[in-house]
Amino acid sequence: MAATAPSPADVWAAYDDVRRAGPLVHNITNYVAMDLSANVLLAAGASPAMVHAREEAAEFAQLAGAVVVNIGTLSPEWAESMLGAARVASERRVPWVLDPVAVGATAYRVKVATDLLPLRPTVVRGNASEILALAGAAGRGKGVDSTDESADAVEAAIELAARTGGVVAVTGDVDIVTDGRNTLRVEGGDPLMARVTAMGCAASAMVGAFVATAAEPMVATASALAVFGLAGERAAAQAAGPGSLRWRLLDELHGLDEQSVLDGVRIS
Amino acid sequence: MAATAPSPADVWAAYDDVRRAGPLVHNITNYVAMDLSANVLLAAGASPAMVHAREEAAEFAQLAGAVVVNIGTLSPEWAESMLGAARVASERRVPWVLDPVAVGATAYRVKVATDLLPLRPTVVRGNASEILALAGAAGRGKGVDSTDESADAVEAAIELAARTGGVVAVTGDVDIVTDGRNTLRVEGGDPLMARVTAMGCAASAMVGAFVATAAEPMVATASALAVFGLAGERAAAQAAGPGSLRWRLLDELHGLDEQSVLDGVRIS
Amino acid sequence: MAATAPSPADVWAAYDDVRRAGPLVHNITNYVAMDLSANVLLAAGASPAMVHAREEAAEFAQLAGAVVVNIGTLSPEWAESMLGAARVASERRVPWVLDPVAVGATAYRVKVATDLLPLRPTVVRGNASEILALAGAAGRGKGVDSTDESADAVEAAIELAARTGGVVAVTGDVDIVTDGRNTLRVEGGDPLMARVTAMGCAASAMVGAFVATAAEPMVATASALAVFGLAGERAAAQAAGPGSLRWRLLDELHGLDEQSVLDGVRIS
Repeated sequence: MAATAPSPADVWAAYDDVRRAGPLVHNITNYVAMDLSANVLLAAGASPAMVHAREEAAEFAQLAGAVVVNIGTLSPEWAESMLGAARVASERRVPWVLDPVAVGATAYRVKVATDLLPLRPTVVRGNASEILALAGAAGRGKGVDSTDESADAVEAAIELAARTGGVVAVTGDVDIVTDGRNTLRVEGGDPLMARVTAMGCAASAMVGAFVATAAEPMVATASALAVFGLAGERAAAQAAGPGSLRWRLLDELHGLDEQSVLDGVRIS
Repeated sequence: MAATAPSPADVWAAYDDVRRAGPLVHNITNYVAMDLSANVLLAAGASPAMVHAREEAAEFAQLAGAVVVNIGTLSPEWAESMLGAARVASERRVPWVLDPVAVGATAYRVKVATDLLPLRPTVVRGNASEILALAGAAGRGKGVDSTDESADAVEAAIELAARTGGVVAVTGDVDIVTDGRNTLRVEGGDPLMARVTAMGCAASAMVGAFVATAAEPMVATASALAVFGLAGERAAAQAAGPGSLRWRLLDELHGLDEQSVLDGVRIS
Repeated sequence: MAATAPSPADVWAAYDDVRRAGPLVHNITNYVAMDLSANVLLAAGASPAMVHAREEAAEFAQLAGAVVVNIGTLSPEWAESMLGAARVASERRVPWVLDPVAVGATAYRVKVATDLLPLRPTVVRGNASEILALAGAAGRGKGVDSTDESADAVEAAIELAARTGGVVAVTGDVDIVTDGRNTLRVEGGDPLMARVTAMGCAASAMVGAFVATAAEPMVATASALAVFGLAGERAAAQAAGPGSLRWRLLDELHGLDEQSVLDGVRIS
């Protein structure tokens, strides 16, 4: 589909960069996702920080290699912090990732997410229904009705990327990564991952670690999702259920070696 | 004790319904319990959401199959959200569960919990001292002093159920479920479960999943506690300590099959 | 270095006291650390409570055997609760522990931490850069520049302890515990522990459990860190990565017996 598809060797190089640089990733993320996001970042070799107060979020964002804004659990104070941190990130060219959790569910989520969009997130990562809702809220016409939600979401992602000027990722059975012109497919993962809370949020945190160290957001995003999916796939192969999947995923992220990445990553 | 005691086959049917329907359970729960509650709900086949902001909690409650309100970590804003969500649930006949964590410990908790009671929770679940404190705060006379706290708690539960018109569950070595007229005893669980944080809160979340899909709150509550206890018992049998108990419980909830439920559930 | 160095038998006695007494430890700690702190306290035999609201934090602190204040995730409301709970603890001689997470990172953190210091924390526990930042913010002169950060941190810890009149612990490859006059070295732990979020915060919670039951804060702090380090070391020896390290640590804390403590603890 695109000339920009990173090879497995590119993915390994990107992961190796994260581990060597140990980038500081500033997360304003939901209560449920904090623990797993922090542990995923640590297992991947990055350095997480969770800083939410209006009194410090924007100041802290200046120190970060990347900022991850996740609207999973909102409040007016946090929404302000999100805007402040995203604004600083945008102005200072710190890459930032938007995770529009459950954006279509309430009017308040739509408002906060659409307030954040003009600050041009480097990457937006969501599932199909979130990307559809966000693209719709951002003014996308309804277009041809589609019964194929994932095809429809790809179209919405492309339109949304054109609008933000950044990358949009739709994660699901297959992950889609687009910058509005080129579109990549990232395979991997396991259905059992959907039975562990905050896995999508943790994937967004991973994207944060990779955009902090990689020059190219498309490559960074696809690489992050490929590594996360591979670790999840390997963890699921040994897991007896969602409880063991979770800790095995962290062990896999920490232990993944070059050969496993070269053999396991599938991006097209 | 009662004609309403669900058989193991009824419990299995109730659990199977949860897994098939995957009900959306809206939790306003404490920071410590969010992760485990969400993961317990996912492992059990339900779909958890944690939504707390005043700006959206009541709106979101309309979408839910059940609402779980847990006062473990309070603030004035959250107390408002709890009241708003419970009010919507009560008006729209969405079943809702109240978990009055540590209700007797501070005046503030007493106030919030007693403000919630008139909204008629479908189920109240607490430990013996919480149910005693809540029944006392709700105007229960002291009655005959009892050195047997659990017998006293059963009496308090019956009075509290008569007042709310709903079900009250007292969990402990043996769980008691009453609607003020009939009273069930649910056996199961393991003492090691008390060495893992938020296990009681997670049990309340389970009750939320079951009341979302079952017609009868008594059956739903007893079934939820029986399944949770059985999974905990099976997890404890293999666990080397509280760390492994926690993830094994999630694996067990996910993997429990019909035969295990038929053989393992003990309700009288 | 000091006559106060507890023997392994003293450490075991201190741990045994925690398990027998099951002290109530009131934590005002960050969102990321709550789950692990609560589970560490439960695994160690203590009884954790997480209570943050201004409406109840000070009241609750009166009930506690110890209070742990951790500034990891701040807000103005929480800062007030921290001050209120620390003030009550200080007045009523309830031991309290300050964990100045990332204190140097933002102006807001410096302000909150330096507001708390005059309330004379029984123990301050941080890593080298936190203790350096806090001692600096509290008026420490720059002194001789040192390229050896850990030696510099020991000096800062001694000055900080002299100022608070309490104990200061600097955790790292080797943990340092000082009351300004005597200084102990506690060995143990494993580098993999740094790849699990909130391990330092959990160590502070452990210190809370020990100061709640032990008469001597130096002995309590060194014992808590020794037991925590030993459990971490034993967990790491069996762990395949940070995911399994975390639950194994809880299992080890729960299962540690006298012989293991006598054989494994190294304090000088």
